[in-house]
Amino acid sequence: MGLKEMKIHDNPFFEADKRKDTMNEDKPAFEEEIIPLRNEIDDIDSRILSLLAKRQAQVEKVVRLKKKYHVPVYHPAREEDLISKLRASAEKAGLEPDFLEDLYRVILRQSRVEQTDKMAHKGVRPGARILIIGGAGQMGGLFVSLFQKSGYQVRILTESGWDKAGALCEDIDLALVSVPIDKTGAVIDKIAPFLSPETLLADLTSIKEKPLKKMLDSHPGPVLGLHPIFGPTSTSLDKQIMVVTPGRAPDQCRWLIDQFTLWGAVMVQAGAKEHDEVMEIVQALRHFATFCFGRFLYEKHVRLEKTLEFSSPIYRLELGMVGRLFAQDSDLYSEIIFATKERRLLLKEYLASLAGHLEMLENNDKALFVSRFNEIAQWFGPFSEQALRESTYLINRLIERF
Amino acid sequence: MGLKEMKIHDNPFFEADKRKDTMNEDKPAFEEEIIPLRNEIDDIDSRILSLLAKRQAQVEKVVRLKKKYHVPVYHPAREEDLISKLRASAEKAGLEPDFLEDLYRVILRQSRVEQTDKMAHKGVRPGARILIIGGAGQMGGLFVSLFQKSGYQVRILTESGWDKAGALCEDIDLALVSVPIDKTGAVIDKIAPFLSPETLLADLTSIKEKPLKKMLDSHPGPVLGLHPIFGPTSTSLDKQIMVVTPGRAPDQCRWLIDQFTLWGAVMVQAGAKEHDEVMEIVQALRHFATFCFGRFLYEKHVRLEKTLEFSSPIYRLELGMVGRLFAQDSDLYSEIIFATKERRLLLKEYLASLAGHLEMLENNDKALFVSRFNEIAQWFGPFSEQALRESTYLINRLIERF
Repeated sequence: MGLKEMKIHDNPFFEADKRKDTMNEDKPAFEEEIIPLRNEIDDIDSRILSLLAKRQAQVEKVVRLKKKYHVPVYHPAREEDLISKLRASAEKAGLEPDFLEDLYRVILRQSRVEQTDKMAHKGVRPGARILIIGGAGQMGGLFVSLFQKSGYQVRILTESGWDKAGALCEDIDLALVSVPIDKTGAVIDKIAPFLSPETLLADLTSIKEKPLKKMLDSHPGPVLGLHPIFGPTSTSLDKQIMVVTPGRAPDQCRWLIDQFTLWGAVMVQAGAKEHDEVMEIVQALRHFATFCFGRFLYEKHVRLEKTLEFSSPIYRLELGMVGRLFAQDSDLYSEIIFATKERRLLLKEYLASLAGHLEMLENNDKALFVSRFNEIAQWFGPFSEQALRESTYLINRLIERF
Repeated sequence: MGLKEMKIHDNPFFEADKRKDTMNEDKPAFEEEIIPLRNEIDDIDSRILSLLAKRQAQVEKVVRLKKKYHVPVYHPAREEDLISKLRASAEKAGLEPDFLEDLYRVILRQSRVEQTDKMAHKGVRPGARILIIGGAGQMGGLFVSLFQKSGYQVRILTESGWDKAGALCEDIDLALVSVPIDKTGAVIDKIAPFLSPETLLADLTSIKEKPLKKMLDSHPGPVLGLHPIFGPTSTSLDKQIMVVTPGRAPDQCRWLIDQFTLWGAVMVQAGAKEHDEVMEIVQALRHFATFCFGRFLYEKHVRLEKTLEFSSPIYRLELGMVGRLFAQDSDLYSEIIFATKERRLLLKEYLASLAGHLEMLENNDKALFVSRFNEIAQWFGPFSEQALRESTYLINRLIERF
């Protein structure tokens, strides 16, 4: 959605553009004077580049040390300390502290990703045998590749491979279920009888109450519910969130949690019921609202390119969020939205809430709108101000990039 | 909305955390070995910092040269050329080209903002007399300050100052109307009789058809419709979009457009009717949809902090977009949403479109959802993929920052 600037000077309205020609008549002199300055800048840039390469080499040494002593990659205190120091030095050097912070956030992220990449090869329990049920799917495939890189023995069970289930389950340390929501229950029932009581049974389903209960009921050994809050297109687990809903025998589940942490993930613990309630809003409602908005744009045949031409970065960002949904798998979203009766009820309430604004529009009742708006604003409280600040930061990144 | 990590180790489920202690027993040795490496990194960072300060000094010289030769600040070709070269050098130095590009987008933006800041002091027509009607408002105030900094003589007409209108309009070169939408028409009618036929009459209203017609009908001189697509909290016009709807006597309007361009704005030209149609979607529909979503969260008393704890960066971004709306002025949004009959009709159609999904939810009809989803996806076409890429980029910036 590259921004198109209208060619104002091609338009007859702006034909009489005399000033511009006058302004440019000294162009050769300007070019002559600017060349040495640009060369100087290019020289500075190449020195910055070589320092960045040196910095990377030092970071690699740090990684080797961290590996040796089993120290985690991400060291928030060291990063914040570094940023504070740099902000102070920036001010002394006549540079904007915010600018230097932005810059170092980019550098530190890159450094973290590279460290995580290198650390990832280290397994918490290398050689352990892992069966991924649904390992041919997108999400399953991501974990197949992560575990393999870290030296695990990975086996895959696909929909058509159930006749080999017995052999595949032999001596495994972990059975990880990564199948669509509506199949999870049946798959757990089917795999459980093949597992030894030592095997850890875990799932990656985006609802947790039912699958966790099912795993606890059908398997007497260690059980762990997981919900990775990221898509299969993620290239790194760096700072990605994974919800953990404990099941049974925490000691025997520990290594798996440690492994995700080593890959850079942030593990957040929750009860299964609490998790599901939150996800009704975070996933079902939000995706449904986006779906409805996209549907209306389609029904009205809105000319998207035209709206992008005249619009603010924040509109581009919001339309991007809508477009993003429709680049993804319709089955995945239908599963998320229709997962439970409670979700469908919530979405019906959402539609009813919207219908409640019809009269306000029909009566052209601006006063009612303002009073509703202010109620909501008060309820959002300080979050609104924070949201304004954070999204403004992102909008500036967007302007800078596109 | 800082991300809270649950303290997994404080929970009894994870009590038996023996591995971690074993892992840390060599801590003093690790600390001893890492200190020289960290010192080396700190040294590299301070050299990078001093090069950045040198770079800034060079850029200041470039600015002085550009001022001298009236050359605009933003030079897209030079920037893209620089980025390409840096990407190539990065690869040779063993650095990720994407990383270096991200870094230099930050550096170049900063450099542009500073150049624009410095250039801004230069007026295209310094000394010209400008009357801003509504100059005490937020948006009016932004332009008062911009024009003043660039050496214009700025006068302000407020709601209570109409008895001085005659004196304020004497010898002015530009009368700029910056008042709420529903007052624009009356204000134009009221100010026009005070203007000489040489005075440029322009407005900043977010609808254009009616105000432009009103200006052309009531003033025989130069007329220009403007719509700044940014809020009054913007600190710079750098790369901000302003729509221009031509009215009358383009030659005499030219200097004003040049001034905005010099401040860094991107001027996009459009017909007034076309502009208004696009804004029905870009502003009215989008803000109304966000309002409805916020209202439902309020009605359900959703615990926002809880949803943020477990959620993906993209959810935080989307909730931030909702929260952002409610940090702003309810009157402004009621004006935008209720501006015209056409808008209210469109919004009623939106509510009707949503009601059309009720049956699908009641029947638990996943197949219908998938078929509707796929229709929309096809209509969005390649835009979806692009949106996915761009928003993924932004999400990474968000992860890196918060």
